[in-house]
Amino acid sequence: MIKVGIVGAGGYAGATLINILLRHPEVEIIWLMSEEAHKGKKINELYPHLNGQIDLACQTLDDLDKNLNSIDLVFLALPHGIAINYVPKIIDAGKKVVDLGADYRFSDNAIFKKWYGIEHTTKKYLDQAVFGLPELYRAEIKKTKLVGNPGCYPTASILGTAPLVKHGLIELDSIIIDAKSGVSGAGRGTSQKTHYCERNEGIEAYAVTTHRHMGEVEFQLSKVAGKDLAVTFVPHLTPMTRGILATIYAKAKKPTDGKQLTALYKDFYKGEPFVRILEGITPNTKYVSGTNFCDISVQYNEATGKIIVLSTIDNLVKGAAGQAVQNMNLICGFPETTGLKQITFYP
Amino acid sequence: MIKVGIVGAGGYAGATLINILLRHPEVEIIWLMSEEAHKGKKINELYPHLNGQIDLACQTLDDLDKNLNSIDLVFLALPHGIAINYVPKIIDAGKKVVDLGADYRFSDNAIFKKWYGIEHTTKKYLDQAVFGLPELYRAEIKKTKLVGNPGCYPTASILGTAPLVKHGLIELDSIIIDAKSGVSGAGRGTSQKTHYCERNEGIEAYAVTTHRHMGEVEFQLSKVAGKDLAVTFVPHLTPMTRGILATIYAKAKKPTDGKQLTALYKDFYKGEPFVRILEGITPNTKYVSGTNFCDISVQYNEATGKIIVLSTIDNLVKGAAGQAVQNMNLICGFPETTGLKQITFYP
Amino acid sequence: MIKVGIVGAGGYAGATLINILLRHPEVEIIWLMSEEAHKGKKINELYPHLNGQIDLACQTLDDLDKNLNSIDLVFLALPHGIAINYVPKIIDAGKKVVDLGADYRFSDNAIFKKWYGIEHTTKKYLDQAVFGLPELYRAEIKKTKLVGNPGCYPTASILGTAPLVKHGLIELDSIIIDAKSGVSGAGRGTSQKTHYCERNEGIEAYAVTTHRHMGEVEFQLSKVAGKDLAVTFVPHLTPMTRGILATIYAKAKKPTDGKQLTALYKDFYKGEPFVRILEGITPNTKYVSGTNFCDISVQYNEATGKIIVLSTIDNLVKGAAGQAVQNMNLICGFPETTGLKQITFYP
Amino acid sequence: MIKVGIVGAGGYAGATLINILLRHPEVEIIWLMSEEAHKGKKINELYPHLNGQIDLACQTLDDLDKNLNSIDLVFLALPHGIAINYVPKIIDAGKKVVDLGADYRFSDNAIFKKWYGIEHTTKKYLDQAVFGLPELYRAEIKKTKLVGNPGCYPTASILGTAPLVKHGLIELDSIIIDAKSGVSGAGRGTSQKTHYCERNEGIEAYAVTTHRHMGEVEFQLSKVAGKDLAVTFVPHLTPMTRGILATIYAKAKKPTDGKQLTALYKDFYKGEPFVRILEGITPNTKYVSGTNFCDISVQYNEATGKIIVLSTIDNLVKGAAGQAVQNMNLICGFPETTGLKQITFYP
Repeated sequence: MIKVGIVGAGGYAGATLINILLRHPEVEIIWLMSEEAHKGKKINELYPHLNGQIDLACQTLDDLDKNLNSIDLVFLALPHGIAINYVPKIIDAGKKVVDLGADYRFSDNAIFKKWYGIEHTTKKYLDQAVFGLPELYRAEIKKTKLVGNPGCYPTASILGTAPLVKHGLIELDSIIIDAKSGVSGAGRGTSQKTHYCERNEGIEAYAVTTHRHMGEVEFQLSKVAGKDLAVTFVPHLTPMTRGILATIYAKAKKPTDGKQLTALYKDFYKGEPFVRILEGITPNTKYVSGTNFCDISVQYNEATGKIIVLSTIDNLVKGAAGQAVQNMNLICGFPETTGLKQITFYP
Repeated sequence: MIKVGIVGAGGYAGATLINILLRHPEVEIIWLMSEEAHKGKKINELYPHLNGQIDLACQTLDDLDKNLNSIDLVFLALPHGIAINYVPKIIDAGKKVVDLGADYRFSDNAIFKKWYGIEHTTKKYLDQAVFGLPELYRAEIKKTKLVGNPGCYPTASILGTAPLVKHGLIELDSIIIDAKSGVSGAGRGTSQKTHYCERNEGIEAYAVTTHRHMGEVEFQLSKVAGKDLAVTFVPHLTPMTRGILATIYAKAKKPTDGKQLTALYKDFYKGEPFVRILEGITPNTKYVSGTNFCDISVQYNEATGKIIVLSTIDNLVKGAAGQAVQNMNLICGFPETTGLKQITFYP
Repeated sequence: MIKVGIVGAGGYAGATLINILLRHPEVEIIWLMSEEAHKGKKINELYPHLNGQIDLACQTLDDLDKNLNSIDLVFLALPHGIAINYVPKIIDAGKKVVDLGADYRFSDNAIFKKWYGIEHTTKKYLDQAVFGLPELYRAEIKKTKLVGNPGCYPTASILGTAPLVKHGLIELDSIIIDAKSGVSGAGRGTSQKTHYCERNEGIEAYAVTTHRHMGEVEFQLSKVAGKDLAVTFVPHLTPMTRGILATIYAKAKKPTDGKQLTALYKDFYKGEPFVRILEGITPNTKYVSGTNFCDISVQYNEATGKIIVLSTIDNLVKGAAGQAVQNMNLICGFPETTGLKQITFYP
Repeated sequence: MIKVGIVGAGGYAGATLINILLRHPEVEIIWLMSEEAHKGKKINELYPHLNGQIDLACQTLDDLDKNLNSIDLVFLALPHGIAINYVPKIIDAGKKVVDLGADYRFSDNAIFKKWYGIEHTTKKYLDQAVFGLPELYRAEIKKTKLVGNPGCYPTASILGTAPLVKHGLIELDSIIIDAKSGVSGAGRGTSQKTHYCERNEGIEAYAVTTHRHMGEVEFQLSKVAGKDLAVTFVPHLTPMTRGILATIYAKAKKPTDGKQLTALYKDFYKGEPFVRILEGITPNTKYVSGTNFCDISVQYNEATGKIIVLSTIDNLVKGAAGQAVQNMNLICGFPETTGLKQITFYP
């Protein structure tokens, strides 16, 4: 049994963390922090679905110091560039951190700066951080106290592409990721882009050549490949609340077929509790909604020599809070699937 | 630990039963039955979200005899008029039944016939049946082997209205229930009415003066009132997948106020694990989606003397499979909330 | 051919006005005004669907004086309490006004103050204003220069109820209006209430006993009845972009039937170009989406003696901009349906 | 003024044709035909939004002979392989045909057979047919009596890709089209795939390597290129009713930039009434919903050398009925935009 605090509890990732942790038999939520405007508000005022489930009011990061002693682990769900200011203090206090933001996802300071425009002033903490994708870094995660939890698009994209890159099956300069996300990926903050009437019954691409998650995917796939590569990544805002579908295209080095590729994916993810390789059907974001699963299928277009991978996750679970809990389980020594066995309510 | 079979596993209520029971620590699902067209199909072919969760193929009701010995309890999720033909055999075999259909909801044969056009030929089994609304009939449910699980609209409507009727606060001829349901209430069967393009971006009433659930609500509220009453019940097909909101109007016998009424509701449902009385906010079907909760608020329009109750459930959970499991827990002696502590993933 | 200006062009009602007027053969849009933040922006920056259709930049109300001479008529689509400050000047300049806001909907200053908390300081202009519901006030509208265009809920509610009230068929204290609105009724402004993720897959009531449109409905129905009456009005936020369905309940004074009532409605709205009385089907907001129609059906619940009317409109067209153009046609002497013959694209 | 008949009036393309033609000043709809089940039904029973707009009952194709004399032009909206049996007779009777199905889209019999499994027995009529994409074949369309109206995906895909192919800017083996379609593309027929509950809140790819529209795109782009090419085409079923977004990726032969490409597209589509090249924003299917526009934007990913084109249409208008009317205008000598000036109602 561990005690945890959640920073950024008022956002969708924070709320999803609360949902999962309330069912987790080894975790007690001790405190919640959110933005200034939420100070003093009960979390179930912000999220009425939590009525009767939890009785905590929101504090702010100003209250961090006096609250550090009461917990073993902190989840940070913050806009980029903020965690940097608090992580050293938390780690120095001997606590563990799962950071759901971008600040500790890049072991290379220069690349972080390139995409986010800020830099880590002390290498010390960055060097301890492990990229929290258990399917690639399980052993390292188990040994660290500081996890940089992957972004939502990168989780779906990297899990979908890594087997091809690892086995050298594709031309590395040919990777195209056409990603479709639900609106919750934009967070709970209000803007015209998240207005119901602007989103319903319409789909559009955005940040066509500039999305920061492109950098995260490239950085990680380059590590898998053992050499630098660039990907074409185009995100799309899709009229649904949750879910990401990454449709991944790559040129096969030599002719193959769907059966062979499927076998390879099954082997690559053998024993993985949260990756399901589908055959005979295509993944639908609905199948994984509210779950920590990544559903993947792979096919081959013979006429064009392109491999097509479909990879789906729930952006708030495997793409954020669920994976964060998976990482917490790993760094705290709990069975990896604890609290994460939820399947979706369908339909 | 008990063993159960599910008849009607291919429908949405059946799929929801599977979802809940897979998490239930005291239940093992032994077999599944569905319609002829599903015979021999793995359930995860019908519901790919179940991939890796359960490995059973569908049988049909023709296989019931040879499968009865292997289980302790049967869930029936069938169109009305079919359960009648199988329940006697199951009960006679010493097994328990939770029937999610309409056949055992009416203890009065004549009223059942009035609304459904068929009748029970043997009173014997009907007399054993208890209407499975634990908030009203918990003691009786615990003692029976045959539960007639309430319909979705009636669950929301009766829970929302019963306190007013019980306390004699309203004119009994003034009850109006304006109910809004998600499309899953129409089942998984295909029809033009459930076509995405016909439903999205539109709301409409249907069966304005003839919906059978009106009979169920009237029958139950009459029992609560101790005298016959009629309700005006108008269901609406709403562009969403899950959820029911019943907006209930009734003329107060004498002036009151929202505060007083809220206190009365809180008292009426004191200790109920699945009824939440809200104050200061109105219920939203999203807050209860995927859960066994019924969220209720009550207000008073001073100028017109009308009490307005808002009552929300998930039609497939508290309105079907969740309540069925709640009833199973009661008749099998498990703690009532076992397997049902799920809160919604929000948003 | 007349020249018009639109104030509030950046909102949904304003955008809908532009859409309609661009097809209107007798109108030229001369200028657009919107909020400070839109100043100088091309309207097609705010609304990219207008690309290539219109080439005007937004001004603000500060620019009204210098722009008054260039037009014959002004549409005002403003939050309540603002039009009051500009209408006298526009009328005094000899121009016509169709005000889509609430300021000129109440001929009784006291009632306006009761619901909106402000009052008209000069009776002069209020006395000229006509409530812009052509089906009730066509003759008066034709003679005025100042129209108070009805609210969206009131349009659907009054058209649905007026025949019953006018013919004295119902108990006047029994009227209940359960209204379901799409999200665009809340405007284009951003708030948590209009966030896609908060609205999709959920329905909720709001302002259960306090919505200002209740006052508008009461005021108008009282005029029809010839005596004061109060209505119970509960609005619901429905997961769709456009459309209002008002489900109206009232106690019949004596037994009747659907056929008789339908005939009465057909007679009441005989010759009306925009009211369609449906038989055999229930109205769906989809059927009127993007149109100036109000579709109505009426039924009778024999067991409870309640008449049930279903009334649907597009909240932005017949509930706002379409009706405003209908009023403009009337006060400018154009055929009433000019520019308004659009039927919906279905589905 | 011409007289037309519509075959397939009960489907969504047929209904959209009716909508458009009711507003067309040069067209009178003389008769409607639909499937056997609709025989004798008034079209407004099938489509209640048409109440009061048109008073025709559905006939079937069995009634074609006796109805041919009464019209000048026939629209055929039929599943593939059926038009083949009727077109000769209609052409021989001296009437014009716009066929919205696939039967006359391929001038090469072998390729039609490859993708559709059937073949034209008489070359005579096939040789007269022109592919009805006015932006590429306007001159030919004007001279023919038989138009094979393009599919929805091909319209968006070809318009988005043709400028690159025509100007030789891309590697021809690198074209990838990731297409997202609303559910109405699947037609009005019911199936589990079009059930509201199966579609809402989920996105999935389908026919990943086998969709027949891939053949249509390849055939047409090969003609533009002057040599055979193959494309990778993956369609996705998106939770919305209308609209197609094609995200098109291709490898640039040499470095370029978005500005240059945009200029090239503007030039390519100069004077086209229904193609809008957007700058500074990305197309959204909402902007073109209900209209005959194709909105396109083009960008360049410098790091990967990929050109990314976004192309949106309304699948039922520019992707079906609108383009069919555009073709009718051309072959009948009406101004090309007659009846098609509709802009979308936004939001």
